[in-house]
Amino acid sequence: MTGALGIFDSGVGGLTVVRAVQELLPGEDIVYLGDTARVPYGSKSPETIRKFADEDAGFLISRGVKAIVVACNTATAHALPDLRSRYGVPVIGVIEPGVEAALADPSAERIGVIATRGTIRSHAYQHALAQKKTGLMIYAEATPLLVPLIEEDWLDKAATELVLRDYLEPLVEKGIDTLLLACTHYPLLVPVLRGVLPEDVRLVDSATTCAEHLKRELGRLGLLRSAADGGGLEVHLTDLSEEFETLARRFLTKAPGRVRRAVLES
Amino acid sequence: MTGALGIFDSGVGGLTVVRAVQELLPGEDIVYLGDTARVPYGSKSPETIRKFADEDAGFLISRGVKAIVVACNTATAHALPDLRSRYGVPVIGVIEPGVEAALADPSAERIGVIATRGTIRSHAYQHALAQKKTGLMIYAEATPLLVPLIEEDWLDKAATELVLRDYLEPLVEKGIDTLLLACTHYPLLVPVLRGVLPEDVRLVDSATTCAEHLKRELGRLGLLRSAADGGGLEVHLTDLSEEFETLARRFLTKAPGRVRRAVLES
Repeated sequence: MTGALGIFDSGVGGLTVVRAVQELLPGEDIVYLGDTARVPYGSKSPETIRKFADEDAGFLISRGVKAIVVACNTATAHALPDLRSRYGVPVIGVIEPGVEAALADPSAERIGVIATRGTIRSHAYQHALAQKKTGLMIYAEATPLLVPLIEEDWLDKAATELVLRDYLEPLVEKGIDTLLLACTHYPLLVPVLRGVLPEDVRLVDSATTCAEHLKRELGRLGLLRSAADGGGLEVHLTDLSEEFETLARRFLTKAPGRVRRAVLES
Repeated sequence: MTGALGIFDSGVGGLTVVRAVQELLPGEDIVYLGDTARVPYGSKSPETIRKFADEDAGFLISRGVKAIVVACNTATAHALPDLRSRYGVPVIGVIEPGVEAALADPSAERIGVIATRGTIRSHAYQHALAQKKTGLMIYAEATPLLVPLIEEDWLDKAATELVLRDYLEPLVEKGIDTLLLACTHYPLLVPVLRGVLPEDVRLVDSATTCAEHLKRELGRLGLLRSAADGGGLEVHLTDLSEEFETLARRFLTKAPGRVRRAVLES
C-alpha cells in the first residue's frame, strides 16, 4: 500500500491509535506494525528502545509509507529525534499531541500523568508540559499494572478498581484538574476511570489526540487523502499468537483482517 | 567460568532457581542469562520461543558450561527436546522436577497448576502429571497478572490478595490438595498464598524442586563439585536497565555483583 500511513507500536496497544485514525481519516490506508516478539518496550533501556524503533520504522519505510506515527509512548520518548533525522517522511509521536490537548483548556493547572515506568522515567511528558506552560503543577505516576489488567480484559473486576484507586489517590489528593493517559492502552480504561475520578477531572488520551494532530499535520503538508480513496488496513506483527489476535480484535473493536508475520532487518 | 552451571530464563524470574541452587549446591559456579530484551516469552508463539531458547542456550554453551538449566517454564514446555538433541551437555527443565515433587506425596490426588498463559496453553504440566499417575484430577489456571504484581513488589497490597482469591477460588472449590507454582516468579508469592489457601493445601514450587533435581542429576553423572571449589555467579542480561537490576537483587536476596550485557547470536 504505497502512500499509506505507517503506524508502529511495541505491541497491540497502538491499535487504539489506528482506531482513532480510521474514525477521523477514513480515506487513509494504514500499515500497522506491532513488535509483538519483543513487547513490551517500557521496561527496556533507551539504547535498546532506539534500536528496536529504528528497525520498526525501517520496516514501514520499506512498505512505501508517506508518514510514520510512533504509536508507542516509550518509543516516542526515546527515539523520535533519531527517527526524524534518519527518515525522509514526517514522523509523528504521541507525546506532543497529548501535551497540546492537555493544555488546550487554558484553566489546566494541575496535570496528572499516568504511564508505564519507562515513559515516566524518561521525563518526556513532564519536560514537554513544563516547556509549553510555566507555573504548571505536574504529578507523574508510573502505573505498570494497568497494561496487564487491560490485556487480561479485567476492566470490570474489583481488583482493577482497587489498583486504580491505589495509583490515583495521590493524584486526586493533589487536586489534579487534568489526567493525561500517556499510554496507548489506556483509552480502554476510560469508563472505569470515570467511576474512580472526581467528575471534574478532564481525561486526555494519547490515541484520539494523536489522530487529531495527524490530521492537522497531513493537511498542512498537503498529504491528506479524500474519504472516498482508501481505508485499507494491513496489520503486521513480529510474532503471531492467538492471544495477540484476540487482543487486536478487542483494541480495534472490529476484525483486523489477515494478520501477517513481519521479519525486521536488524 | 568453564565447568559452571548455565541457567537461563526469559528474564529475571529464573534467579529464584539460581538462589535455590546456590543454597543447595554452594560449590557450583553459575552463569546466568536473562533475555530481558525480549521478556516475556509466555505470550509468544512456540516457534519464536524455540528460536529464543536456542539462542540463549548457545550463549551459555559458548561460555563453557557443563550443564544447562532452563529456568523458564515456557521455554521448558516448548524447547526442551530441541535443546537436548542439539547440545552435548545435560539439559534440565523446570517441569519434570515440579511434577515429580507434586507427586512425591502419594496422597496427592487433586492438583492445581498455576502459571502464565503460555505454560498453561502448552498443556506441558497437565500432560506430564497425567503420564506419571493415572486417575489424577488436574485443575490448570492461567494467572498472567501474578508476574506483574510480583515485579511491582505489590506482595503486601490488598489488590494482590484480591487477584489471588479471584484466580484460586475455582481451584479451592474443586478441593485441590496440592498447588503447583509453575512459574519461576511465584516462589516470592508463597507467604501471601499461605494466607489465601486452606492450610492443608501443599505448595510445590519450580525453583527449589528444580535445584533438588539438578543435585541428583549432577550426582548421578559425576558432575558435582565440592562445596569448597567455587560459588561464583555471573549474571548476563540481553538488556540492562535499572529496573532489571533492582528486580535481580530482590529475586536473589543478595547483590548479583556486576551485571553484564549479553549479545546473542541469532
